[in-house]
Amino acid sequence: MSGWNARAPVGRIAYVNGRYVEHGEASVHVEDRGLQLGDSVYEVCAVVDGLLMDEEEHLDRLERSLKEIEAPMPMQRAPLKAVFRELIRRNRVRDGLLYLQVTRGAVRRDHPIPDMPPRPTLVMTARAIEKAALDARRKDGIAVITRPDERWARCDIKTTQLLANLLAKTAARRAGAYEAWLIDDDGNVTEGSSTTAWIVDGKGNLLTRSLSHAILPGVTRRVILEAAQESQLAVIERLFTPDEASRAAEAFISSATGVVPVTAIDGRMVGNGKPGTVTRRVQELYARRSAMRAHAADGAR
Amino acid sequence: MSGWNARAPVGRIAYVNGRYVEHGEASVHVEDRGLQLGDSVYEVCAVVDGLLMDEEEHLDRLERSLKEIEAPMPMQRAPLKAVFRELIRRNRVRDGLLYLQVTRGAVRRDHPIPDMPPRPTLVMTARAIEKAALDARRKDGIAVITRPDERWARCDIKTTQLLANLLAKTAARRAGAYEAWLIDDDGNVTEGSSTTAWIVDGKGNLLTRSLSHAILPGVTRRVILEAAQESQLAVIERLFTPDEASRAAEAFISSATGVVPVTAIDGRMVGNGKPGTVTRRVQELYARRSAMRAHAADGAR
Repeated sequence: MSGWNARAPVGRIAYVNGRYVEHGEASVHVEDRGLQLGDSVYEVCAVVDGLLMDEEEHLDRLERSLKEIEAPMPMQRAPLKAVFRELIRRNRVRDGLLYLQVTRGAVRRDHPIPDMPPRPTLVMTARAIEKAALDARRKDGIAVITRPDERWARCDIKTTQLLANLLAKTAARRAGAYEAWLIDDDGNVTEGSSTTAWIVDGKGNLLTRSLSHAILPGVTRRVILEAAQESQLAVIERLFTPDEASRAAEAFISSATGVVPVTAIDGRMVGNGKPGTVTRRVQELYARRSAMRAHAADGAR
Repeated sequence: MSGWNARAPVGRIAYVNGRYVEHGEASVHVEDRGLQLGDSVYEVCAVVDGLLMDEEEHLDRLERSLKEIEAPMPMQRAPLKAVFRELIRRNRVRDGLLYLQVTRGAVRRDHPIPDMPPRPTLVMTARAIEKAALDARRKDGIAVITRPDERWARCDIKTTQLLANLLAKTAARRAGAYEAWLIDDDGNVTEGSSTTAWIVDGKGNLLTRSLSHAILPGVTRRVILEAAQESQLAVIERLFTPDEASRAAEAFISSATGVVPVTAIDGRMVGNGKPGTVTRRVQELYARRSAMRAHAADGAR
């Protein structure tokens, strides 16, 4: 009845409100505020070699998102981390994605935040990714197109209100590109529809937009900033236009699945149309730093 | 497991994907795109004396919303209307609300619109409203506050992405008001968080904002426009500011539950602080016209 179309491999397990359940049976109530009102936030973490990447940073951001919408954490960090690991184990995920969604819960439909809040809904799934396709994108790079940024005024909150994002991403795919970079009313790039946008100038400096309500505080963005500082790689946080981007030496995107070179913007080649050397260095710095910390976190448990 | 908190009366029935189910058991899959991505639209229709108000107009708008997000209607109009009536009957609703939500369906999570679209998810619920409270608001009027409009660029599509709306409504309730009027970047009123905003000038003309991507094409708004024309009541569709509104002769809101006078805006009394005579006339015109057509539609079946 819950409408799952059964394209997933049999045997997958999801976590819903305290229980591990068959993926095909995993459901939420029709009056869940996440479904009816977009009253809901989420996180996606990469699993690499069986280890969760940037776990604390994702939990920091989850906590921040929930605070911004005045919703409570569904459980403490320690048990949450235990569920992450159990779900990865039960689904035998080596390289994949952990998905976590928290809604304000299921309650008789009415717009305002309820005076007596329901129990939050907590959903988690874990699955393998198509690693060969991801590796190919990392190696060869991708094309992006630009689209008007039609999202709301609080893109710093990682809500599940992703319709503007998915329509932009759909337009990109139909144009033969992988991602859409969103353009604000002043003509500047905000970010990708599900990724952070970066360019590299002629001096080898990294450029990315400053944090504000207009963009998501990317976890990978934050780790790249830390790694760049340690490696004497200069980062300038400022606005840039698509035109400046297509005249840049290099360009790339970052997200939970890492760093991917951008080789064309709106059909215009970036640099020589090949992934750049600074981008390669950022790929390595990010991957090494995240893996190192994931191992340390795993060893410390 | 689906997390319903059981505050609803026992015996209520919901409709989910072709089946009538116990309300407490009504659920959608955790990978429903409505839940995960806000990829979903909805309608709310009033039930008055057991009859559905403005049914065709709501179905017109549903069709339009789905078209705008490139999603199909979940079923033809005739069977949809049959389900409406069956759900009202099974839940013994005399004065209440019918809620209908359509999502793009449940499918392995990925942003773009799937090349092979899943079956749309169709959820419907019906319940009684607190008629005494609604009647009191209609009689005595309500206060509104103003808030920045933080919504996305396509508020003409009735999506379930309502977080900005519900945060504004929550702010209103905490301020002792009933509704929040949203203010665009130019300082004009767009609409209420879940209602259309209207004022009445010194000459008895109705004023409301023109349709655009910035506001929802209100069904009740449309019916009021038709009724006003028949009754020689002038309507001017143009922008207005909260300041003009609080200096207006009268103000009111409209939504599926009808026309409600606004007697204060941001603490400033509108007119003499009582519901106005033009507002009263619009209340009657709307109620009469909707009821008349609902009876005609019901008789024609």
